[in-house]
Amino acid sequence: MKLISPGLRERNKNRVNIHNKKIVPYPEVLAAQKVISGKVHRTPVVRSDYLGKLTHTKLYFKLELFQKTGSFKPRGVLNKLHHLSSEDRKKGVVSISAGNHAQALAWVATQLDISSTIVMPAGSLLSKIEATRSYGGEVILTEDNLLETCLAVQKERDLILIHPFDDPKIIAGQGTIGIEILEDVPDVDVVIVGIGGGGLISGIAMALKEQKPELKVIGVEPEGASAMSQSLQHGEPVHLDRVDTIADGLAAPFAGQYTLAHVQVYVDDIVIVSDLEIVEAMKLILERCKVTAEPAAASTLAALLSSNISMTQGATVLCVLSGGNIDQKSLKSLL
Amino acid sequence: MKLISPGLRERNKNRVNIHNKKIVPYPEVLAAQKVISGKVHRTPVVRSDYLGKLTHTKLYFKLELFQKTGSFKPRGVLNKLHHLSSEDRKKGVVSISAGNHAQALAWVATQLDISSTIVMPAGSLLSKIEATRSYGGEVILTEDNLLETCLAVQKERDLILIHPFDDPKIIAGQGTIGIEILEDVPDVDVVIVGIGGGGLISGIAMALKEQKPELKVIGVEPEGASAMSQSLQHGEPVHLDRVDTIADGLAAPFAGQYTLAHVQVYVDDIVIVSDLEIVEAMKLILERCKVTAEPAAASTLAALLSSNISMTQGATVLCVLSGGNIDQKSLKSLL
Repeated sequence: MKLISPGLRERNKNRVNIHNKKIVPYPEVLAAQKVISGKVHRTPVVRSDYLGKLTHTKLYFKLELFQKTGSFKPRGVLNKLHHLSSEDRKKGVVSISAGNHAQALAWVATQLDISSTIVMPAGSLLSKIEATRSYGGEVILTEDNLLETCLAVQKERDLILIHPFDDPKIIAGQGTIGIEILEDVPDVDVVIVGIGGGGLISGIAMALKEQKPELKVIGVEPEGASAMSQSLQHGEPVHLDRVDTIADGLAAPFAGQYTLAHVQVYVDDIVIVSDLEIVEAMKLILERCKVTAEPAAASTLAALLSSNISMTQGATVLCVLSGGNIDQKSLKSLL
Repeated sequence: MKLISPGLRERNKNRVNIHNKKIVPYPEVLAAQKVISGKVHRTPVVRSDYLGKLTHTKLYFKLELFQKTGSFKPRGVLNKLHHLSSEDRKKGVVSISAGNHAQALAWVATQLDISSTIVMPAGSLLSKIEATRSYGGEVILTEDNLLETCLAVQKERDLILIHPFDDPKIIAGQGTIGIEILEDVPDVDVVIVGIGGGGLISGIAMALKEQKPELKVIGVEPEGASAMSQSLQHGEPVHLDRVDTIADGLAAPFAGQYTLAHVQVYVDDIVIVSDLEIVEAMKLILERCKVTAEPAAASTLAALLSSNISMTQGATVLCVLSGGNIDQKSLKSLL
């Protein structure tokens, strides 16, 4: 495990990007909160004395795994679809996803009486395909390039494309988690968030830092899917030829224009974790907190356990447990 | 699966036992609430739309598995030890348990600066033995009769015996869950609770029925450990020669004088479930609610899924998830 981009914090000291067009303004998060309120759960925060002792912190978990459809994704999707014109709603929406975004899009679209089509990799878990269908989404499985297939379907059927993460309305929706974190743990010093495409951390980091700039936000990427770290190094979004991690929720093969900009401005550091470290963290969360964090979620505790995050002893830390969608077979094989 | 004691409800219609000396008066629960407040978690209630649809109910779960030490047990123990004289506190306490009560007693005693000794079966799970020790309890392992060994230790060391369930202060402490249930789900029609020795259901059923007599309380026992059902049939507490169930939290080989009296007066029915049904319910809770219910806790959903509980379609039902103490190996083998 290693620490990436230790210079991020330095850059953040001179934040000047408030007029950067790729940065979502904080009031958008407040607006999103009004949109989604009552339609999704306001998820609880719990404290773990045992894991706090183990990591020399006052440790909290945001249990976003209790969210509707089992992950944070409906927050952004609800905000996005809410702002579609009635004409666009009639056309229906299309997107790509291997799991959590697929379920969230299908669920939200059905709530709003919008038809949804989701292009998923042929190798997706049957449980996620079935869940997406059960929420009312049409699933198209492909072995070809996901995005290209999606764009072809979109053109052919004249659908509205919903990007899974690189969209201001999606980012604003995920940012509502940042508001809730500060309501529940106002003295939080460090917030740790997993990074796939970066939509979740973009929203959370922006919402947190605009309220409490001295707070630290740490991102986590798996060794085998570090698109954001690599994008930071290159100064532009990179596409990975392949990804390889058990954390399917963090396996996006590319970062976005918006999400890279948010990470550049608002995120202090990114920690890289191995699949083995993620599994160990998952087991600890299962045994000590009695909740099933999917690997993407458990990566946050893995980062904390790695001791690669510099912080004061006894700091107040919150790990975002972003989702709990792991099927029994996978769980059994990981235990 | 079969329904036991359908006549219970009839008997309850003529409740006259309010002056029965074996029944804990409801004000004792209110007093216990004051004692334990701030020392244990006030655990949350969640709703499951999916499992509600599956069972044609409006379905809630009381997540007592988030309680300190991983089960409801500290509520009763805190109330019991709080009322010990300073002389008795100095002597130290002793009890028997294969798991959850052991951990709770060790944890509470250490909080109150009381020494604790717990006699556990030699075959107890290593994880539970270690947890009990980590909370500060002295563990004595025995292959002989648990209660007899405990009484010998008590005499030899002049300790104060704490019964794991058949004690008015313990029952009053567990009853605080009943208060919280009605605060969170005031329109609840049916509450389902697992029965081991009966301390949990005694407190909950009494607290609920004294506030809302029309509510139904259903108990659940595993096929291989149905001491309470058999005690009801015999009209007095029976001791089983052997118990055989994966639900170690419900594996008490006998009912108590107090707990039998409470079940006779306040419990409407007892449903018997198989280990297979318990495991299926555990998996559903894990996959849909993202929490690890130990078998004893999952038995409540198993009873609901069995359709052996008579209720109006669409009734508001709450299953008490009493604990989450299951080690990874056991979980893996059950998945």
